[in-house]
Amino acid sequence: MNTFGHLFRVTTFGESHGPAMGAVVDGCPAGVPLTRAQVQQALDRRRPGQSALTTSRNEPDQVELLSGVYEDKTLGTPIAAIVRNQDQRSQDYDALKTKERPGHADRVWRARFQHRDPRGGGRTSGRETLCRVIGGSIAEALLAREVPALRVVAWVSQVERFVAPTPAGGLTRQAVDAHASRVPDASTAAQVEARILEAKAEGDSLGGAITVRCEGLPVGLGEPVFGKLKARLADALSGIGAVTGVVWGPADLEERLRLPGTRFHAPRADGTPSEVYGGIQGGLSNGEPLEARVLFKPTSTLTDVAKAGRHDPCILPRAVPVVEAMTSMVLADLWLSFLAGPHRP
Amino acid sequence: MNTFGHLFRVTTFGESHGPAMGAVVDGCPAGVPLTRAQVQQALDRRRPGQSALTTSRNEPDQVELLSGVYEDKTLGTPIAAIVRNQDQRSQDYDALKTKERPGHADRVWRARFQHRDPRGGGRTSGRETLCRVIGGSIAEALLAREVPALRVVAWVSQVERFVAPTPAGGLTRQAVDAHASRVPDASTAAQVEARILEAKAEGDSLGGAITVRCEGLPVGLGEPVFGKLKARLADALSGIGAVTGVVWGPADLEERLRLPGTRFHAPRADGTPSEVYGGIQGGLSNGEPLEARVLFKPTSTLTDVAKAGRHDPCILPRAVPVVEAMTSMVLADLWLSFLAGPHRP
Amino acid sequence: MNTFGHLFRVTTFGESHGPAMGAVVDGCPAGVPLTRAQVQQALDRRRPGQSALTTSRNEPDQVELLSGVYEDKTLGTPIAAIVRNQDQRSQDYDALKTKERPGHADRVWRARFQHRDPRGGGRTSGRETLCRVIGGSIAEALLAREVPALRVVAWVSQVERFVAPTPAGGLTRQAVDAHASRVPDASTAAQVEARILEAKAEGDSLGGAITVRCEGLPVGLGEPVFGKLKARLADALSGIGAVTGVVWGPADLEERLRLPGTRFHAPRADGTPSEVYGGIQGGLSNGEPLEARVLFKPTSTLTDVAKAGRHDPCILPRAVPVVEAMTSMVLADLWLSFLAGPHRP
Amino acid sequence: MNTFGHLFRVTTFGESHGPAMGAVVDGCPAGVPLTRAQVQQALDRRRPGQSALTTSRNEPDQVELLSGVYEDKTLGTPIAAIVRNQDQRSQDYDALKTKERPGHADRVWRARFQHRDPRGGGRTSGRETLCRVIGGSIAEALLAREVPALRVVAWVSQVERFVAPTPAGGLTRQAVDAHASRVPDASTAAQVEARILEAKAEGDSLGGAITVRCEGLPVGLGEPVFGKLKARLADALSGIGAVTGVVWGPADLEERLRLPGTRFHAPRADGTPSEVYGGIQGGLSNGEPLEARVLFKPTSTLTDVAKAGRHDPCILPRAVPVVEAMTSMVLADLWLSFLAGPHRP
Repeated sequence: MNTFGHLFRVTTFGESHGPAMGAVVDGCPAGVPLTRAQVQQALDRRRPGQSALTTSRNEPDQVELLSGVYEDKTLGTPIAAIVRNQDQRSQDYDALKTKERPGHADRVWRARFQHRDPRGGGRTSGRETLCRVIGGSIAEALLAREVPALRVVAWVSQVERFVAPTPAGGLTRQAVDAHASRVPDASTAAQVEARILEAKAEGDSLGGAITVRCEGLPVGLGEPVFGKLKARLADALSGIGAVTGVVWGPADLEERLRLPGTRFHAPRADGTPSEVYGGIQGGLSNGEPLEARVLFKPTSTLTDVAKAGRHDPCILPRAVPVVEAMTSMVLADLWLSFLAGPHRP
Repeated sequence: MNTFGHLFRVTTFGESHGPAMGAVVDGCPAGVPLTRAQVQQALDRRRPGQSALTTSRNEPDQVELLSGVYEDKTLGTPIAAIVRNQDQRSQDYDALKTKERPGHADRVWRARFQHRDPRGGGRTSGRETLCRVIGGSIAEALLAREVPALRVVAWVSQVERFVAPTPAGGLTRQAVDAHASRVPDASTAAQVEARILEAKAEGDSLGGAITVRCEGLPVGLGEPVFGKLKARLADALSGIGAVTGVVWGPADLEERLRLPGTRFHAPRADGTPSEVYGGIQGGLSNGEPLEARVLFKPTSTLTDVAKAGRHDPCILPRAVPVVEAMTSMVLADLWLSFLAGPHRP
Repeated sequence: MNTFGHLFRVTTFGESHGPAMGAVVDGCPAGVPLTRAQVQQALDRRRPGQSALTTSRNEPDQVELLSGVYEDKTLGTPIAAIVRNQDQRSQDYDALKTKERPGHADRVWRARFQHRDPRGGGRTSGRETLCRVIGGSIAEALLAREVPALRVVAWVSQVERFVAPTPAGGLTRQAVDAHASRVPDASTAAQVEARILEAKAEGDSLGGAITVRCEGLPVGLGEPVFGKLKARLADALSGIGAVTGVVWGPADLEERLRLPGTRFHAPRADGTPSEVYGGIQGGLSNGEPLEARVLFKPTSTLTDVAKAGRHDPCILPRAVPVVEAMTSMVLADLWLSFLAGPHRP
Repeated sequence: MNTFGHLFRVTTFGESHGPAMGAVVDGCPAGVPLTRAQVQQALDRRRPGQSALTTSRNEPDQVELLSGVYEDKTLGTPIAAIVRNQDQRSQDYDALKTKERPGHADRVWRARFQHRDPRGGGRTSGRETLCRVIGGSIAEALLAREVPALRVVAWVSQVERFVAPTPAGGLTRQAVDAHASRVPDASTAAQVEARILEAKAEGDSLGGAITVRCEGLPVGLGEPVFGKLKARLADALSGIGAVTGVVWGPADLEERLRLPGTRFHAPRADGTPSEVYGGIQGGLSNGEPLEARVLFKPTSTLTDVAKAGRHDPCILPRAVPVVEAMTSMVLADLWLSFLAGPHRP
């Protein structure tokens, strides 16, 4: 099952150390402005080697559009995009052919497929997320045309014991990217960046949380029973490798669960629905900003096992565009589903 | 989108105040032992009116099997089951025709469907979950035949500020049901039950958490990219009305995220994988017990708004079988998908 | 797999001699006018016992709507409808418990499900088609609101060696139903009706063809590669029990295949596309009337084997509403898919 | 909708005059022997330029496997395969930018997508079928491992007014390929080949029929209601561009429909089910050879309109591997679905 979505469908393929990775996006309507540069720019945001905080692997990851786009507009046909794998160095992984890595899926993967591609984790590699970023960039092109008010922005809200304050509304991706750690608060960012460099030096790894916020959503997106907006997003976000939980609503939601309903549900002073709903009621978007906190485990590839593997001490900064991509793919899909109902703009 | 699952598919229908609720289960193989009494017993576990802790509504909820079963075995054809709505009292809701209830989906539902069934929330009612319990009971009949070692057990692990200690392995549903609160720890249960009665008297409501644990899972269940076991369960569990988060792994997972990877990933003393994985690696079951904590908001129907609505002050005890049902439906579906691969028992 | 359609989804259930048959229609938008009488009227058109030409079984087939409709409008939630089985007389089939009927699926059904419901063929019975008629009637309610110019009309165009002339455009269901044989040509109808009565007296059965025509289709319905309009209809129509072929275009299409392309493709005198296209080009509707001929085998239940089974000597007259229903379900589904593209009316 | 199949899923992409065509096959189990040469060999059978009968375009069509295969075995991950477009000559089509071609989908395509890729028909081009042949070759690799007795063979059974006698059982693809026309009867083949050359000289085109036969099918393949084997194949085969009908059973099926049921259903002398069933009963394979006749229109691109387009005067010989590919894709998909039931080899 390598297809995500019902109407806006993204099928991904590629082993991290095979010839290429890629995605086919089916269901994107015709006439949506889309250039190779747009997709490339999205990939560049998840690319390793952007700062001292990440793996030293250099993956230029140049995308090629094979179909579905003509003269910078979508054709309404499937959009296939591929990225050749270049810096493969499979030999780094030779030592792993017989040794299973703690925290890795090597053992369960072998149970499932009765063999394992030893070349770098095959499909379980974090490199698979570049396919999701391709899908997300095309979803965002569609949403940009059809829901222009929408803003999907994620940021690193926690790394290990360092928790950033919640930013005010109107946060931009530019403001997030201004920090190598993608923590959009200068003071916390400095602490986090120092801690990541320390962990890198120690061959250790760090987990934490990414928060994603969607502003400008139309009211009524999602399906009321199965396919609720929160269920679709939980599916999408939990499907990212290291994610170990998704919690809706404000950063202190779990503390607020210790309040009785009369206080928990109290509307805000301005009469808008309480922010505890995280922008979702009855499974559908309620027009308020949607907010979710996505918990990430520390990466399981530690330097002492695969020192030549050149992995990230903390994947969270690079996971930010992946979280945005999965979110946008869900929204694009639910948007098309919304159109098949009686809601025609 | 009222169908859940790919190979084991459950389609649900019914408004809480219409003639009937029901489910059609398609994809269940032939020859699985299944009686009406089994389905009824599952429904009885979620039925209101079982203790002083729940709503005073009396819903006998007698299920009728319309198809797919003959001489107490499944036929391999769709299994349709219905429950007539009896204690409807729509007049209780007359006052709501014009008034929107805080925390309820009334407003977003109207935006989506351009009208609203005023009779008790329509499909957004918690009563819709009885359809899920029907689906879950049939999933469990299939799993009982094909994965006999499997045990899916959920319990109330937190209500408001009261948190129960994590029970040892081998917990049974009987042990959970021994407490009206479904908190399987006598001391915490007593506190919780007193607090629920207090909230009921005050017309208030309480949230908290349910933990679900699966023991005896085969290794390799789930799909490696989209459709990871954790993603499918996150989708299933987040789709329950009041759920506001799903977190994998042990109860203290979020504290452990404040540890570096070297400590987080340390295997247990006996060499088995760390319990932080919550039984899932690489998106697939790893053979260890799977454990997830499902966060619930306090119910949003407060007595001051709909005093005649006779709602639950704390839905968690009654949500336990719903959490188990959604979990079993996911496992049955992934099990059939597993069989379509090279894994034939 | 008992669900038909992608966006407008019809899930059917029920064994012919179990408690009930039914369908759940999911994906129908809210606000579509729909009454129980409309569905009942559709069922009445396929009901046996309408004339001397059909089985003597009396099946009142009263439909009950269980959900999805309120005050004669759809709610946007799943519409469940059931019909109780009344005239079951399973004892007629007792003799068949050990004897396989030639032409029936008894043997293959047993191979598939490793057992067989002896009560009248289970799901393979022609009675299953009443579920399709329910689905079709709801599809037609949707299309009536959204594509009001559309007319889907089928008729019996051949019975055994009797072939009716092709009727002119604008044919109505009323004109077809004016003949017990549903052959809309008085002279052929008389011959056909005499021949059916003769076959009934002889315990024999007759095959032939039904032609279905859709007038008023918008241009561009269908999917260009997989899911072409003709492919979706071929799937839908070939899925009717006794169908043994579907041929697009005019009645003499097969003779015209003996012409070279220059003559085959010649546009009509008025410049509109040739009628050989049967209203479909490139997989999509071209705005011209769509026409297909659906071939039916003689029924395989012959009186000498199951004389008490009281089957139809010629199912074609009763299959006409089933052909219309399957066609309408495809069109409703493709219509919703069309709306998810850039085509918003 | 560019994905075909439910468990064995083939997603195709590519415009005939864009950078590349390709397919992603998802759901193929791990460990299936598969080489690039196998896929290439399948493509070579549909390639133009194999004889004087076909277009003079030279399309080397070298396939590259991008993922899913390692050391000549499938990995259980998606298999992506692409073919670069080389001999594009878009300038041949410049004249068509403003002129619509009779019989072509240009007009309906524009209605659907509100623009048209003028470069050779985009996705509606017959070149899209190479993606299907890729999918079919992988389906055949799976079936070769799991249903080794199965043989899927198609041949040209009619071209214009020339009809070939039905070959005996055990026909091989080699025997079919021995004739440039793929008519496996020397005398008819000679007539057909002469007629095709004549049509080519005249700038005309020819239609006819391809028959496909499957020997060695297990009993019980298919779904009993929707998803009948015949319905799935009708969908698959009707989805090929020029197909205008699919008829099950022997070549003279339509004549036999003029027989009453007693004669139509008579079993063969050896007691096996009548060949009129075309190998299908109750929607499922009955273990007998399956046979279907697929009707093709003459190609609609005539030389007088696009003389530089270098199209085939008769596409039937090159469509034979496409018919086989679609058939194999359906069988592979239904085979996996069969395994998810209680049928485990």
